[in-house]
Amino acid sequence: MDIQALRKAHPEHWMRAAAIRTLTLDAVAAANSGHSGMPMGMADVATVLFQNHLRFDPKAPHWADRDRFILSAGHGSMLLYALLHLTGYKQATLQQLKDFRQLGARTAGHPEYGHMEGIETTTGPLGQGIANSVGFAIAEEILRARHGKNVINHHTYVIAGDGCLMEGVSQEAIGLAGMQQLGHLICFFDNNNITIDGTVDMADITNQSARFVASGWHVIDIDGHDPVAIDDAIKAAKADPRPSMINCKTHIALGHAAQDTSKGHGALTDADQLKAAKEAYGWSGGPFEIPADVKSQWEAMGTRGAAAHAEWQARFDKLSKSKQDEFNRAFALDAPKKLSAAIKSFKKDASEAGKKVATRSSSEAVLGVINPIMQETVGGSADLTGSNNTKSPDQGVFNPDNRAGRYIHYGVREHGMAAAMNGMVLHGGIRPYGGTFMCFTDYARGAMRLSALMEIPTVYVMTHDSIGLGEDGPTHQPVEHLAMLRATPNTHVFRPADSVEVAEAWELALTEKKTPSVLCLSRQGLPLVRTDHKTKNMSAQGAYVLADAENGKRQAILMATGSEVSVAMAARDILEAEGIGTRVVSMPCWELFEAQEENIRKRVLPGGPVRVAIEAGVRTGWDKWLMGERGREQKSGFIGMPGFGASAPAPELFEHFGITAEATAQKVRDLIA
Amino acid sequence: MDIQALRKAHPEHWMRAAAIRTLTLDAVAAANSGHSGMPMGMADVATVLFQNHLRFDPKAPHWADRDRFILSAGHGSMLLYALLHLTGYKQATLQQLKDFRQLGARTAGHPEYGHMEGIETTTGPLGQGIANSVGFAIAEEILRARHGKNVINHHTYVIAGDGCLMEGVSQEAIGLAGMQQLGHLICFFDNNNITIDGTVDMADITNQSARFVASGWHVIDIDGHDPVAIDDAIKAAKADPRPSMINCKTHIALGHAAQDTSKGHGALTDADQLKAAKEAYGWSGGPFEIPADVKSQWEAMGTRGAAAHAEWQARFDKLSKSKQDEFNRAFALDAPKKLSAAIKSFKKDASEAGKKVATRSSSEAVLGVINPIMQETVGGSADLTGSNNTKSPDQGVFNPDNRAGRYIHYGVREHGMAAAMNGMVLHGGIRPYGGTFMCFTDYARGAMRLSALMEIPTVYVMTHDSIGLGEDGPTHQPVEHLAMLRATPNTHVFRPADSVEVAEAWELALTEKKTPSVLCLSRQGLPLVRTDHKTKNMSAQGAYVLADAENGKRQAILMATGSEVSVAMAARDILEAEGIGTRVVSMPCWELFEAQEENIRKRVLPGGPVRVAIEAGVRTGWDKWLMGERGREQKSGFIGMPGFGASAPAPELFEHFGITAEATAQKVRDLIA
Repeated sequence: MDIQALRKAHPEHWMRAAAIRTLTLDAVAAANSGHSGMPMGMADVATVLFQNHLRFDPKAPHWADRDRFILSAGHGSMLLYALLHLTGYKQATLQQLKDFRQLGARTAGHPEYGHMEGIETTTGPLGQGIANSVGFAIAEEILRARHGKNVINHHTYVIAGDGCLMEGVSQEAIGLAGMQQLGHLICFFDNNNITIDGTVDMADITNQSARFVASGWHVIDIDGHDPVAIDDAIKAAKADPRPSMINCKTHIALGHAAQDTSKGHGALTDADQLKAAKEAYGWSGGPFEIPADVKSQWEAMGTRGAAAHAEWQARFDKLSKSKQDEFNRAFALDAPKKLSAAIKSFKKDASEAGKKVATRSSSEAVLGVINPIMQETVGGSADLTGSNNTKSPDQGVFNPDNRAGRYIHYGVREHGMAAAMNGMVLHGGIRPYGGTFMCFTDYARGAMRLSALMEIPTVYVMTHDSIGLGEDGPTHQPVEHLAMLRATPNTHVFRPADSVEVAEAWELALTEKKTPSVLCLSRQGLPLVRTDHKTKNMSAQGAYVLADAENGKRQAILMATGSEVSVAMAARDILEAEGIGTRVVSMPCWELFEAQEENIRKRVLPGGPVRVAIEAGVRTGWDKWLMGERGREQKSGFIGMPGFGASAPAPELFEHFGITAEATAQKVRDLIA
Repeated sequence: MDIQALRKAHPEHWMRAAAIRTLTLDAVAAANSGHSGMPMGMADVATVLFQNHLRFDPKAPHWADRDRFILSAGHGSMLLYALLHLTGYKQATLQQLKDFRQLGARTAGHPEYGHMEGIETTTGPLGQGIANSVGFAIAEEILRARHGKNVINHHTYVIAGDGCLMEGVSQEAIGLAGMQQLGHLICFFDNNNITIDGTVDMADITNQSARFVASGWHVIDIDGHDPVAIDDAIKAAKADPRPSMINCKTHIALGHAAQDTSKGHGALTDADQLKAAKEAYGWSGGPFEIPADVKSQWEAMGTRGAAAHAEWQARFDKLSKSKQDEFNRAFALDAPKKLSAAIKSFKKDASEAGKKVATRSSSEAVLGVINPIMQETVGGSADLTGSNNTKSPDQGVFNPDNRAGRYIHYGVREHGMAAAMNGMVLHGGIRPYGGTFMCFTDYARGAMRLSALMEIPTVYVMTHDSIGLGEDGPTHQPVEHLAMLRATPNTHVFRPADSVEVAEAWELALTEKKTPSVLCLSRQGLPLVRTDHKTKNMSAQGAYVLADAENGKRQAILMATGSEVSVAMAARDILEAEGIGTRVVSMPCWELFEAQEENIRKRVLPGGPVRVAIEAGVRTGWDKWLMGERGREQKSGFIGMPGFGASAPAPELFEHFGITAEATAQKVRDLIA
């Protein structure tokens, strides 16, 4: 690569891009860790994008109609931090660049959503950003259809590397975007042919351009260091109705001794090599110093968007007050005032009807009430719509012919769905929920963890939540998944017992702003246990007394969730008939219960009586509740799964694994004997 | 679809294929659940494959050089069960077909490895089978290179549906197979254009043939109901040096009223429609009845392979006794006799050297000892070879130019790697291990669960196992992953504390036949804690007393794993100096400890002293050990992670999150106060 020729051909562009390269080198050297090569390789693309195309206003980083810029290759975080600093985002101070990767800095090793304005999503786990970007672009399409292009009309740009494109989730994203013809989505492929282990062909010979074309994308191949070609490609991409992939042939760590090598992927900290690279760039000055003329050119990019933003604001201000309020409400993730009353009314009706209903069906009924009053919900399923019961009649299907549709057929793409939902929440204005079989949380885990880490309220509808799904067998029967989800920080795991608790779970999930929710729902019919209709959302306490000892001294507390709450109630009937006073505690959401004051927890789970937990999953995690507050002695037992399930009709499985009222009653008798 | 024309064109073939279709209809009707359409759609392909190509001997289902047949679209399990029954696998009785999906039957809802001979792998979670098949084909290449084509020379056939190909893991499999030029891998794509939610184009417009071509595959498009075309395609596929994809245009539920509809995907149980379908097929007789001439044609296919098997046996018998023994040993998953002594010697040297080493580096050193004496090991990494320390110098890299290589650059494909490793174990003759960052167990979960469910000893090397990885930050720092892995049934989760425990963990992982192992290893250097060299594998007990109270009455037990064992030892030093007798228990593998007799567990963790657990992860699961045997009262505490980590140098993070010797000592002081 003759970088002197590049310098001469476009000297001003060159110095702007060199600002990114040198800030990267300096920050990585200061941290003595990080990834230098990617920002250095993609500096030209990013410079042209920010200079000529990206619609953004650093003074208003949350402007709803800004273009989104997503760095899927998150290890190249210095590219993003440099861009935000150079264009004048106030949180992206020079000191932050100097504190790259240090405790408490906004400039974490990988871009962390919420740490710094301008970071649109957390990336680092490869493939997530490109899969998020599909959600951003879907959100843009839906909101453009709803509010008109005067209000929403922007692009989503994403940079993906070889690593992102080798990850399976990228195929799910590419397939979904291609089918949906997301014309406002533009992906730059940083085609540098280098991975950590060596050249890409050590592991992959995929023709990425052909692969994207196969899924319906518009593809342009360019030299990723030619600013004119970059600009032309972006123009062409914007003009095409399909999603575009710009395949940018680049050189990792351009101009450094480690250029085009695996070493260039990592931290380039050698002082002499750093000096040599800067000299080759024609760059003078000390670490973190930007020549005034270069800095002012970048600042000009940062101020350019103010005018577009002001014009947008003027258009927005012309909307009716109610339209503005509705728009702002959705972006603020505020629930509509009507929601609470609608849920209460649903609960009353369900309680009075007293029907045996699968909680997945109850969920469908609740959505039938919620979706019409919350236009920001966008539902979907990974090809299990009829099984997950995720679609309500009013939604319409989102596709290229119906951008106003609010239901997405994600295809058999659990991971892509989860990541796209994260993208929709992050875009703003949308509250997505999506369903699959609970066992396939395994496939979606990569994105579900990021919902929790980013503190965003994505909603997962996980049906077929135990051996209760029956004949499909152990590959489809979650047993460890409740434990896994509960072990994940900042995740609300709801396992409602009946229609009333389902409605309460949905209310909590859709009023939450910082925490993802997982609704674990049964395939099989469950009797109503909340026969005493209460207006209060009891699930908000996480756990509560469903029925207390009546016939005799309270000798036992049965704790259960979901489908096993009715098992506990039946066991209580047996025990009470024998004079063994028995309390049943329904625990639809452990995390909310843990968040209660100790006196509330003790009131629900007082010391003394023996405790038996009943859940058709593994025991992991239950010991916390079985051992009582502050480790007090507690005779206790567990009724649940010893390991994986089996293929058979569901009632036989519950008998086979001993998850029955009689087994529960016997456990209590043994404990109090 | 004019099925009468099909009948007339190839009447004998038609009836053979109809046997699959009618058995499927009858079994699904008997079970009143299941998936009819896929077996009915792919019956022609399967019939031609079994009749003209598949090399198999139902009398010897474990014959090492058989062709492998994998049903990635596992919901179509009746296709496989029908084939095994018709060709005479003795476990595939007619009664088993009648008991389809019933408790205790070998004919589970989805094919379960180990339930019935002839089931090569467990499928159902979509995409797994095609990803397994890549591992099968890699194993075949390696063993062919090693033993010669007189001993190993067979094909791997896999049927994948639209669902498999929409799952991201399929792209990882396709990319890996294409780069590796796995010419003995042949994939049939059941291109029926139907998914559960509707036609495929509701979610995907990918040109699958073009997609496979883009990754280096040989592709043939055919009518999947034309037996001549099917046969020609298989011949062409076998002749081509690349992996082949045969794109079979098929009709789901062929000949049934539900043909070409989503309904056809599921259970077709309507009696009248079933009768009409059988009439259209020209099929007479009652449920599960096969005309004698059709049955005998199928049986002939089943006996055809005996000759090839006998010829193979004759060739095999000509090998030297030592070659035969080595071949059989590897297929039996028996460790070589030398292993135990080699591990003991390594432990002695490590113990005497007393160096501070990262456990990932210790692992590399152990592999340097193991790999030369266990030729069946095949290592690899998902593009983190230098970080996972998974390659030993003797292995050589497996690629199209070096089929004898025993190290695989999997690319950035954690899920594909895990599934391919499962395929290698299932093939036989290979013990694979593969590495990534522990946080990315999230990506590999789908396949890791299947290792556990199938009871196969795949080995996962998960490095960078805590905040100890430092600056890469919370996206890369596992905190809930130990809990998740421990919650998974039949999984040995090792978190060794030093070089000695690493060697012990490897010994246990590589002598195990039924359980996958996960080795959780540190990025950061760890001091040697097993200074008193013992010959015995202490990790085999799961947990053991590393150091006991010396200066004073035993008042505290500190429990820890991995990098926190040395923290516990340092805390013990502090406490002992204060006269507080303190025991340290290292717990490298909970599952093995749980499997001990109660008296052993009580000897290690006696009641009385306060207990503090120290682990740089979430608390989930620890309560079991903190609360003591039989729920005895136990004052206890936990030093670990309250939630997600942060980006900073590792030592600062341990201070920041309070995972230190002093914090541990203070917790003990508080508890005994």
